[in-house]
Amino acid sequence: MTPTSTEACLFCNASSESVVWSGARCRVLHVTDAGFAGFCRVVWNEHVAEFSDLDETDRNHVMKVVAAVERSLRSMLSPHKMNVASLGNQTPHLHWHVIPRYRDDSHYPNSIWAAPRREGAARALPGDFAAKLRKAIESALG
Amino acid sequence: MTPTSTEACLFCNASSESVVWSGARCRVLHVTDAGFAGFCRVVWNEHVAEFSDLDETDRNHVMKVVAAVERSLRSMLSPHKMNVASLGNQTPHLHWHVIPRYRDDSHYPNSIWAAPRREGAARALPGDFAAKLRKAIESALG
Repeated sequence: MTPTSTEACLFCNASSESVVWSGARCRVLHVTDAGFAGFCRVVWNEHVAEFSDLDETDRNHVMKVVAAVERSLRSMLSPHKMNVASLGNQTPHLHWHVIPRYRDDSHYPNSIWAAPRREGAARALPGDFAAKLRKAIESALG
Repeated sequence: MTPTSTEACLFCNASSESVVWSGARCRVLHVTDAGFAGFCRVVWNEHVAEFSDLDETDRNHVMKVVAAVERSLRSMLSPHKMNVASLGNQTPHLHWHVIPRYRDDSHYPNSIWAAPRREGAARALPGDFAAKLRKAIESALG
């Protein structure tokens, strides 16, 4: 069953998030266990389900953070493609997946939610990954 | 092989798109053959690969259209959840999928790019679907 209230919501009751940057309206997580190096999530702090539940100012704010994360990941990791998605079928609390994709990752060119096509190549992150990402977000927000 | 130039790009050489609304910078397509009633795509007209290739004004513009489409689909179809995604691994020309999801659709609660879980329930669209969607986009853009 999908959670419909904040009580059962994973993002309202986070216990083990790897927070890279935290703002008043949203936060950026590094999804360290995903098998996709550099996979990040931009999570809206308030429990709203849909992107269009936000007003224009808040939509522009969250997408500015998404774009800053995407740009920083591209600059650090040179992926073949970026994937950005807000699904939330299992956890209907607004969050954007921002995922660097590579020709030799486990699912390419399919979505990461499809069946794997191969064993994905391992890929290391720069030691200052989180620090650079944080700096890029702060710089974008001025 | 993924197209890297406009020559091989499906969105630069569209022949059979169902265009609901067309603007100077982007257009909205109704994906009529997808098995997901109401599935739309917001396609950036110019051949750019990534969301973060756009400047802030253009990003806000395309997301205003995405939000208007999402809001109109929610209002007309009352889906259980909306899914929004920019992947482009196969066609690296910026486009946003905007997909109404239902508990009885073929893939719920998984992404539409996962393996199907069941035969999806058929779902009819209102006769004035395209007209209402077009009006909602024009109204949002003022």
